[in-house]
Order: sequence, then C-alpha cells, then structure tokens
Amino acid sequence: MPEFVKSDLNQVKRKPQRGAYDKDLIYKIADEALVCHVGFSQGPQPFVIPMNFGRANDIIYLHGSTASRLLEHLQAGNQLCMCFTLLDGIVFARSVFNHSMNYRSAILYGKGRALESDEEKLAALEAVTEHVAKGRWKDARLPNRKELDATSVVAVDIETGSAKVRAGPPIDDEHDYDLSIWAGVLPLQLQPLEPVPDERMRSGIDSPEYVRNFSRSPSSTIS
Amino acid sequence: MPEFVKSDLNQVKRKPQRGAYDKDLIYKIADEALVCHVGFSQGPQPFVIPMNFGRANDIIYLHGSTASRLLEHLQAGNQLCMCFTLLDGIVFARSVFNHSMNYRSAILYGKGRALESDEEKLAALEAVTEHVAKGRWKDARLPNRKELDATSVVAVDIETGSAKVRAGPPIDDEHDYDLSIWAGVLPLQLQPLEPVPDERMRSGIDSPEYVRNFSRSPSSTIS
Repeated sequence: MPEFVKSDLNQVKRKPQRGAYDKDLIYKIADEALVCHVGFSQGPQPFVIPMNFGRANDIIYLHGSTASRLLEHLQAGNQLCMCFTLLDGIVFARSVFNHSMNYRSAILYGKGRALESDEEKLAALEAVTEHVAKGRWKDARLPNRKELDATSVVAVDIETGSAKVRAGPPIDDEHDYDLSIWAGVLPLQLQPLEPVPDERMRSGIDSPEYVRNFSRSPSSTIS
Repeated sequence: MPEFVKSDLNQVKRKPQRGAYDKDLIYKIADEALVCHVGFSQGPQPFVIPMNFGRANDIIYLHGSTASRLLEHLQAGNQLCMCFTLLDGIVFARSVFNHSMNYRSAILYGKGRALESDEEKLAALEAVTEHVAKGRWKDARLPNRKELDATSVVAVDIETGSAKVRAGPPIDDEHDYDLSIWAGVLPLQLQPLEPVPDERMRSGIDSPEYVRNFSRSPSSTIS
C-alpha cells in the first residue's frame, strides 16, 4: 500500500496513534467529503475557504472561487493546505477531559496551478461534478465557450498528506468507570432529505438515481 | 444590529451578493457548527486544523490540539482565520456551470492567546463543552488539577468576520429552462443516529435529553 513519507510537514504530532499515511485511506476520506477547506496565506495573514473539489489520481481540482488571493498565493510558488473532515460522532466520556469526537480527517499539501487549456479545464470540471454526484456530467448541459472562459480551475499536485482518525467508545480513566454518568457515542451522519424539484422544471422528468439514492457512505463509493 | 465593518480582510469579493456582516447571523452560523477549521501559517506554509471550539460573546475558545505550530503562530502576534461551514444542500442546475451548493459559512479573524489561570481555563472549557451539548458540563466529572494542567486553551478575540450564504433553487440561464434535465435541490443535514451507550456504563443510567434529542437546527439553539 503506497504511503506518504512522514516529514516535518505532514506528521501527526498530537495523538500520533491516530495518524495514518496510507494514500488509499487518505484519498477515501477526501473522496467522501463534499467540501474541502483550503488554507493559504497572504503574508502573515492566513485564509481558509470552503471549496468544491474533485480528485483524479494525485491531483485535487479546486473550483468555486476565483479568489485573486488564492491565485496570488499560488503564483508565488506557495503550497496549499487542503483539509477534508468527516464528523462521525460525539464521544461523551464520564470526565470532561476525555470527551472527544469520532472523525476521519485528511490533510493534503501541494502546489497549485491554474488550468489553461479547454481539455484540461473540462476534465477537471468533470471530476468536480462527478465527485458531487456520480453520473451528473452526462446528464447536465455541458459548459459552452463563454462559461468555460469564465471558469477558473486550479489543479493541485498532491505532494504529501496524512489522515487522522478516531473511532469507538469513550476512553475514561479507570477510576471514573464507576461514576453514575451517561457515557457513549452519539453517531452523526450527513444525510440527504427529500429532494426538492425546481418549480420551473418541465413535467415528466424523473429524479435521477444519484439524487434519489444519494449516499456518501464509503461502501457506495468503492465501485 | 451590530455589523462588522467591511475591510479588505473580511469583504466577500466573489459573489458579494451572498456576503453578510451582521454579527448576529455570523455568530448563529458559528454556534451551529460542531467543528471549526482553523487556518494559520508557519512562514509561507499554511496549515488548516479541524478543532472543537466554544464561543462567549466576542471570544472563540479553541481546544483539542496543543499544536506547537498554532501557538508559535500566535506568539508571533499573527491573526488566525477560523472558518465555520454548514452544508445545507446540493443545487442541481440544468447546466454544469450553474451547479452550486446551498450553505451557510462564517469566517472570523482575530488574534489568540493561551489562557493561563484556572478560572479562565475552566470557563473556556465549559463554553467548549456546552457548545457541543448544552447541559453536559453539570453532568460530567469536571477537570481535576492534573487534567487542567495538561489542557491548553486558546482564546481568540474576534476582530472581524463575515458570512456567506446561498439558499434556494438553482438559477439557470433563461434558455436552459426548456431542457429535459432534472433540476432541484437535494437538502443535506447532519443528523444524529441512535446513541450507542458505552458497554462499560453502570446499569440504570438514562441517556440525557441533549443526547436523546440532539439537534443543531437553528430553532433549537435560540433558547
């Protein structure tokens, strides 16, 4: 299983036992997330922007903000930090101190570049669209000349990364297990509600499978 | 209604019509989020960390990582950027170009300081605990001397911020409304599943109300 080499940059320092460097696991976490939080800086000022994204092999495509700040940061040759967070539950321990969250998070580092050619931009937009809902690209009206020109896409070549995972029950200090305090996990899941068809939609159009049976659960993304 | 003054730092530049500076709205978004993504930098290298937090008035308390990098960044007098993102749905337009997400996001900027006194640390930990589940602080076993010493809490004095919100149906180009393509919104919500009591819990302890009826919905946080 390919792994990212541990370095000063990607190493999980706090609670290292929760850290992982396995690419497959890291990419699975990223692929399940719908949004990534992109960190960059302008001088000493950090910025974090939630962005849509797609992935193809070792490239993350970012789309959704043509923020000049982000491009400025990239053109200066600086790395981006991209964080993908899946919240799986709240861990109620007996002691305040041992409260925690169950989560799977991935962090990827890499340098980005603006895509220029139509072919590259279309392939990236397809990855971003398919990332949200597999099958949508072939159903939707594809970008025309004007739209393509108005679209900025950044490709980030992934250089390194890591994951951090917590799962399971609370871990309390041994002498706290006798306390009469409720302890356990409240699992959380990002779930789809009933789809809301656009009022202006033509009649007789069925909702597609990726809307009707939308799921981000890991098992559904293996195919 | 108090507002943050628009500045080069907090102004929403991309799709400014979605921007808001109303403190009340911004704090409501932050309060509904369970995790915030904290951005900071070490030289030109940006970092983003998902962290637990609490809020009291114009202070965000950060807890969950004593990352030396974060403290280094702060001790140098640098600002943090904290991003709170609530994903409300996927917006399926007829054209790929007009696909979007419904979301409410808030970004807060401020300088942080490590809390030193027991009183300050305990008040901050109470805010963090109560932020996750209102009522938990009085139920759990409070921090002892050793735990308090082992806990780092950062208080960030909020200087400015903004929110960005998208809601509602897809907006397509007029000539696309005739296309036979499904369009609409798939609402998403972070929902609690069935609580999982710890196997080692003493028998006869009922799950508390904040676990049984857990909700982050805005209506439930007004009280």
